[in-house]
Amino acid sequence: METPLDSLVRVLARLPGLGRRSAERAALALVRRPEGLMQELQAALARARETVCCCGVCGGFTVREANPCPLCTDLRREASLICVVEEPGDILAIERAGVFAGRYHALHGKVSAARATGPGDLRLQALVERVAREEIAEVILALSTDLEGDATAAYVSELLRGGKPVRVTRLAFGLPVDSGVGYSDPLTLKRALGGRQEA
Amino acid sequence: METPLDSLVRVLARLPGLGRRSAERAALALVRRPEGLMQELQAALARARETVCCCGVCGGFTVREANPCPLCTDLRREASLICVVEEPGDILAIERAGVFAGRYHALHGKVSAARATGPGDLRLQALVERVAREEIAEVILALSTDLEGDATAAYVSELLRGGKPVRVTRLAFGLPVDSGVGYSDPLTLKRALGGRQEA
Repeated sequence: METPLDSLVRVLARLPGLGRRSAERAALALVRRPEGLMQELQAALARARETVCCCGVCGGFTVREANPCPLCTDLRREASLICVVEEPGDILAIERAGVFAGRYHALHGKVSAARATGPGDLRLQALVERVAREEIAEVILALSTDLEGDATAAYVSELLRGGKPVRVTRLAFGLPVDSGVGYSDPLTLKRALGGRQEA
Repeated sequence: METPLDSLVRVLARLPGLGRRSAERAALALVRRPEGLMQELQAALARARETVCCCGVCGGFTVREANPCPLCTDLRREASLICVVEEPGDILAIERAGVFAGRYHALHGKVSAARATGPGDLRLQALVERVAREEIAEVILALSTDLEGDATAAYVSELLRGGKPVRVTRLAFGLPVDSGVGYSDPLTLKRALGGRQEA
């Protein structure tokens, strides 16, 4: 029979980034300090579960009292640029980089045959409506650079072509910074070559 | 101000084995599925906190309904052998290896100047009492192979020398399996050489 400690290890091991061994160490650290770390984690989970939700406009994370989220209501941000991402967490990554000052739209997934995610599961209708309703000059697709990301990009472009004229772009493909030809896979090299620019 | 999501990341990042980036990914996975992974983790934590405790005899993990723990009450185990470990989790590691069939005693720490853990913080008196009360032939010190482990081993040996005669041993030092001289640090090599055996 599974002990309560075993169950905790099993659930922790399902968190991304935590292998079986790390989950065991984490579980032991938690039961070692029931009034310390464990209590704090329980409180943080309860609070996050109660308050965190997805913004009704962009689909990014926000709290219930701020919906639409601060990024959607910030008038200093460029309202005519929408950056389309797969996951709400992608918005946090781009914000952390501080390289974009427009609005966002999280699809909550990508078109995937393996996980049976079709276009109907994504927040696509909401995107089409935003483009129809607001004054949008450009939609930037910041999607993953794998087959599913490519399929999603193609689908979204096609979908938006059916409505008001709007420029649809995608993030550049190429070598990542601090890398080189010797570290890159053939597809990255092919795309970096195809997208080459004047030096 | 720290958002509920930030607090969750901060607490998760304090778990051993979880860096800042992994904690962020884990937090996002949790808030993405409040009725899934998050609910399961909350339930597992609540159950572990309610039921898991330390065995009154050996100090290892057990559940409230089984105290003393199954390892302490299993009559097939050799009662005259006590293996002394630092943490309750160490017992699980030795049991998983299946290489020891005696009883255990977890000290709940080691003598450490850095963390201000003196002998008074460890379950040493309980060990002395077990040795005085039970028929113990040998106490095996399965402590870490660092300075603090060495200090703890010296302290425990000295303490037990004051009571009933009992053999006190320590796990062998040497090269780990699947390693070699080229991968070993000087102190390990010195100790492996000192403990060399007939081939």
